[in-house]
Amino acid sequence: MGRVLIIGAGGVGGVVAAKCAEVPEVFSEVVLASRTIEKCERIRSRIGQPIEIAEVDADDVHQLVDLVEEVSAELIVNAALPYQDLTIMEACLATGVDYLDTANYEPRDEAKFCYRWQWDYHSRFQERGIMALLGCGFDPGVTNAFCAHASKHVFDEIERIDILDCNGGVHRHPFATNFNPEINIREVTAPGRYYQDGRWIEVAPLSVSKTFDFPGIGVREVRLLYHEELESLAKNIPDVGRLRFWMSFSDEYLTHLRVLQNVGMTRIDPVVYEGRQVVPLKFLKALLPDPAGLGEGYQGKTCIGCLIDGKIDGDEKRYFIYNICDHVEAYQEASAQAVHYTTGVPAMIGAMLISTGVWRREGVFNVEELDPDPFMELLPKFGLPWTGEFLD
Amino acid sequence: MGRVLIIGAGGVGGVVAAKCAEVPEVFSEVVLASRTIEKCERIRSRIGQPIEIAEVDADDVHQLVDLVEEVSAELIVNAALPYQDLTIMEACLATGVDYLDTANYEPRDEAKFCYRWQWDYHSRFQERGIMALLGCGFDPGVTNAFCAHASKHVFDEIERIDILDCNGGVHRHPFATNFNPEINIREVTAPGRYYQDGRWIEVAPLSVSKTFDFPGIGVREVRLLYHEELESLAKNIPDVGRLRFWMSFSDEYLTHLRVLQNVGMTRIDPVVYEGRQVVPLKFLKALLPDPAGLGEGYQGKTCIGCLIDGKIDGDEKRYFIYNICDHVEAYQEASAQAVHYTTGVPAMIGAMLISTGVWRREGVFNVEELDPDPFMELLPKFGLPWTGEFLD
Repeated sequence: MGRVLIIGAGGVGGVVAAKCAEVPEVFSEVVLASRTIEKCERIRSRIGQPIEIAEVDADDVHQLVDLVEEVSAELIVNAALPYQDLTIMEACLATGVDYLDTANYEPRDEAKFCYRWQWDYHSRFQERGIMALLGCGFDPGVTNAFCAHASKHVFDEIERIDILDCNGGVHRHPFATNFNPEINIREVTAPGRYYQDGRWIEVAPLSVSKTFDFPGIGVREVRLLYHEELESLAKNIPDVGRLRFWMSFSDEYLTHLRVLQNVGMTRIDPVVYEGRQVVPLKFLKALLPDPAGLGEGYQGKTCIGCLIDGKIDGDEKRYFIYNICDHVEAYQEASAQAVHYTTGVPAMIGAMLISTGVWRREGVFNVEELDPDPFMELLPKFGLPWTGEFLD
Repeated sequence: MGRVLIIGAGGVGGVVAAKCAEVPEVFSEVVLASRTIEKCERIRSRIGQPIEIAEVDADDVHQLVDLVEEVSAELIVNAALPYQDLTIMEACLATGVDYLDTANYEPRDEAKFCYRWQWDYHSRFQERGIMALLGCGFDPGVTNAFCAHASKHVFDEIERIDILDCNGGVHRHPFATNFNPEINIREVTAPGRYYQDGRWIEVAPLSVSKTFDFPGIGVREVRLLYHEELESLAKNIPDVGRLRFWMSFSDEYLTHLRVLQNVGMTRIDPVVYEGRQVVPLKFLKALLPDPAGLGEGYQGKTCIGCLIDGKIDGDEKRYFIYNICDHVEAYQEASAQAVHYTTGVPAMIGAMLISTGVWRREGVFNVEELDPDPFMELLPKFGLPWTGEFLD
């Protein structure tokens, strides 16, 4: 039975800790660590089951190594910032423990994210006899498993995949981001990109839109974004012709974003303010509501799924596989809004499948490279029911 | 012959310096001073006539006194920030020189502006035998003179005054303020206030609007704001029943302002950012375009005037007295956009009328307390033609 170390005490880290603590038969010890110990304390006081807490600077490999050794962790779940993926992977190599995260590495000083940096660790992890599972939240994570499931059980041949992410919820603030504002705004303001016939096609940020009728929510406009699972799916879904990712945004969100861009508040280069350097996007983060605090009073649902076109027995079929998650229910169960809940639960399930040996391999992997069946079976048991249905 | 010291090398200071330098028969010496000497140098290099430049921190009375003595100034034109009105007035008292400004004093730490602080200097200025002329830009300034003119020459009795300020110009930026962004946004986000039947009535910021057909521009929506000339006009226009101030804003300006308020960027209380205090509105100022740099490429016109209802020989009459100023022409003549041009020219004319003795008195005064005739006569001669006409 495994000792899991969760790094990061934001909204997602809180869900992972609560969910891991629910299964003491798998996780004999749960340690939650953060740069800010008070955040760990607040989460611990909310969770019925006992967990340990610790203070750590995830940018510092030595501190991480010391902590892993101190708590004898066997697996790290990285729920910290994407900037810290590589330092945590280094600590895993140094100590010989497994690794799982929910978002790929991103350097602080450029808005560029891709798996290359982490995939390059494959042979080192293999040689060390440990596993890294990348992107095991909802999207990426469950969406990758949805694709693997459709490939294994539904289609003879997958031609096109549209990942559709709708947050139909309404919180109490005029503007807030569901994840770390810095990461969210970097992602949304980047050029859109999709995969077609073996090539990547770039479009202006948020310039391509369509509508989709989301089960449980209704018709919503979605915008084409680049999202990290496209990179791994393009590699791992054989002969897929097109891969796109779409996300819904309210008009108010888009207006706020446009204004913040216009005035320079989304810049990630430092600006001189009274003789000191201030990064506008980081300062904006200091002003905006903490995403971990959005849960209370958050109304409505999220619906995230994969719309897949392909062939079955020579016939063209369209299949939509998705989860619906209610913000109010997520908050009642785990004191978290649905966006954090749907990210944290799959991370716990992935950690469970590694800890129990079901998914354990040596090297660096994405979710769709592993057998989707045990993962898909556990999702509804831990709060994420899913539905797959053919559309006309 | 007067030696004038202009403090502040922004857009308005540049216009005042250029215009003073045009009349060496009145201003034998023109000194332009700023905290940032480079800004003075840039203005000097643009002006054909010779001016002196100097570095001074207008928050520091001692530095101001030293500079006044060094250059033997006889009059200070304050084109610095409203925060600095009182230190400059103190320096005038210490050295015995006259004072003129274009905007009333405002404390840095609260968005509250009124004349009380400066009016309280009246007896000290009187005893010292010097003059302070407050608010001698366009609005306040020319608008006050328009009212005095209408009172002296047009109406038997003034009942209601609406000051209407429209900037119909378009610059090259998605969002910029025409004056110091800090001062502008503090003013615009404050509650609206107007004077009626001896009382002040407060309304929510920007909540009251109407349309007006501006000569040279067309029909525009304007919003009710509190503006400082209302305070002095309520005191100085006998028995006026109502006084209001209205300003036009583009939809885009209002959208940007709303978003910046929503995210907290217009706050004037400090926020902790990486262990240091950062005032959001001051940081926003560091990001936004310098108003002094807006002139190039600025298209369109401003129209500012007073719509006055009153009685003439027992009949109800409505009279509109206004100036139209073209951004392109202002830039061609004075390298300034119209908003700075219309503020700087009246300041120079006021300074001229003090220096030549025409307006000189002892104590603290607002423009409408002085004879409007010489001022109104000089306005068109220095680039600000005005028209007064009866409306149906």
